[in-house]
Amino acid sequence: MSLIVTGTLGIDTIDTPHGGAERVPGGSASYFAAAASAQGPVRLVGAVGGDWPAEHRVLLESFNNVDLAGLEQRSDSRTFAWGGRYLDNMNVRETTFTELGVLEEAPPEVPESFRDSELVFLANSHPSVQASFLDQLPERQLSVMDSMDLWIEIANPELHALLERVDGVMINDSEAEQLTGVSNPFTAARKVLDLGPNFVIIKKGEHGAILVHRDGTALVPAYPAGSDQVVDPTGAGDSFAGGFMAYLERTGGRDFSAIQSALAWGTVTASFTLESFGLDGLKNLTIDQLEERVEILRAAARIG
Amino acid sequence: MSLIVTGTLGIDTIDTPHGGAERVPGGSASYFAAAASAQGPVRLVGAVGGDWPAEHRVLLESFNNVDLAGLEQRSDSRTFAWGGRYLDNMNVRETTFTELGVLEEAPPEVPESFRDSELVFLANSHPSVQASFLDQLPERQLSVMDSMDLWIEIANPELHALLERVDGVMINDSEAEQLTGVSNPFTAARKVLDLGPNFVIIKKGEHGAILVHRDGTALVPAYPAGSDQVVDPTGAGDSFAGGFMAYLERTGGRDFSAIQSALAWGTVTASFTLESFGLDGLKNLTIDQLEERVEILRAAARIG
Repeated sequence: MSLIVTGTLGIDTIDTPHGGAERVPGGSASYFAAAASAQGPVRLVGAVGGDWPAEHRVLLESFNNVDLAGLEQRSDSRTFAWGGRYLDNMNVRETTFTELGVLEEAPPEVPESFRDSELVFLANSHPSVQASFLDQLPERQLSVMDSMDLWIEIANPELHALLERVDGVMINDSEAEQLTGVSNPFTAARKVLDLGPNFVIIKKGEHGAILVHRDGTALVPAYPAGSDQVVDPTGAGDSFAGGFMAYLERTGGRDFSAIQSALAWGTVTASFTLESFGLDGLKNLTIDQLEERVEILRAAARIG
Repeated sequence: MSLIVTGTLGIDTIDTPHGGAERVPGGSASYFAAAASAQGPVRLVGAVGGDWPAEHRVLLESFNNVDLAGLEQRSDSRTFAWGGRYLDNMNVRETTFTELGVLEEAPPEVPESFRDSELVFLANSHPSVQASFLDQLPERQLSVMDSMDLWIEIANPELHALLERVDGVMINDSEAEQLTGVSNPFTAARKVLDLGPNFVIIKKGEHGAILVHRDGTALVPAYPAGSDQVVDPTGAGDSFAGGFMAYLERTGGRDFSAIQSALAWGTVTASFTLESFGLDGLKNLTIDQLEERVEILRAAARIG
């Protein structure tokens, strides 16, 4: 088997009430891959510019399970750069700047050696770009996509076309409402199922996530992190996705029950990302460390 | 054993985007008692005025397990009346009017026959009033209190004095933040424990609840109700408390594990309240019906 992620690599500058970080590695594919690599191999497809810091490559390469054969560096282009500021309670974020750079150019190609990938995560991108990645992955067995408010607004037909082709979709609660016009997440999720996917995961940040699958509903709380454990929420959603997909890759499970278990692995993986700026919280992360937090989550969520 | 609630009986007028109800039975003690009665006997202490509708008494008496010996009707007084309007997504509520009536007078007395009560729920009221109820319940084994933003603001010393005397406190997330100055609910809850109680339950509405107990942490999601199952959220918090305390009363459990289980029973009890206006959703509710939803919640929250 083989897990692949397509998405962005970025240079992030983050500001929080308790500190900040400048020009640290970011982007959906970076977080996903680093997060997934704690459980096993993961293939990355993304593009960076000539300005991509050498130390970002060194850091990404230090995650031994990440295969960078699909990383395209374009010497005459600029790397995607993003700035974000978290307000008082760490749940509200504002974007301070965005430099799209390579994201305004043609997307990278899936290299020949990755075309047999079976588990596919399409991180947030224009739905036509996500569709072109799908076209290049004919052996896929399970494909899951992310999206965002911008595409719901300006690329709605392309988004609907893509929803007919994927197995699962992972979006946050406000995106689910925007996509369906329904604020109740369970009702909204059922409307998304009508658009094609077999399951929908609605991410609610500090309130956890819900899964609505054709075979059942699951509810997972966020990991119980105190305020000293929430340093930087950037990348938590993509880390959740990485831990989730890596669990399915590692265990071979594909049914509702496996997907329900995978939610917990995604949740605890994200809890490590929150604890530091950039990818630092994911460094040297092991299955044992994840399992330990899954056990804490399991005990806390148990209904006797 | 014996379970008692002290709180309000009110005449509620409710408006939602999907309909409304005029002058239906409301108030914290009404909801708590009706909710608890599905699992066993419950004693009610509260006051109403001469204008209390006869049909409200008939309805309350139809909950056979509710002992109304502590219901004081004052012919020259007015019943507490309240109006609320829910906005689009049913999560935001505004108060349209409040007529305090009997709530501005001396609180009712705990009748002699109730003074041996062992499980005590002090529904929201001025903390000095809540303290006077505690004084009248010398046999109490487990006492849990609710509160609200108003008392945190105008009766903070009395509230702190009361927190030193109760076993548990049940508040919502914004009240926890207001009380402690901390928005993270786990950190806020630990600060509340420092004020005296053995456990804190922070209610998060559609996002469920968290329990921080000296012996552990528990996380319970809200019952997965679609938009057609959320008719009127009024009284959901007091119904949660009623189902929670009645479970402890019925099972005799007092430790962390029992309290964790009780959260699920409170959650599913509240899910019935949401489905109708006033107390209608709680009518003829049985332990079997509650158990059925606990099983659904258990399956959805299970971490494999």
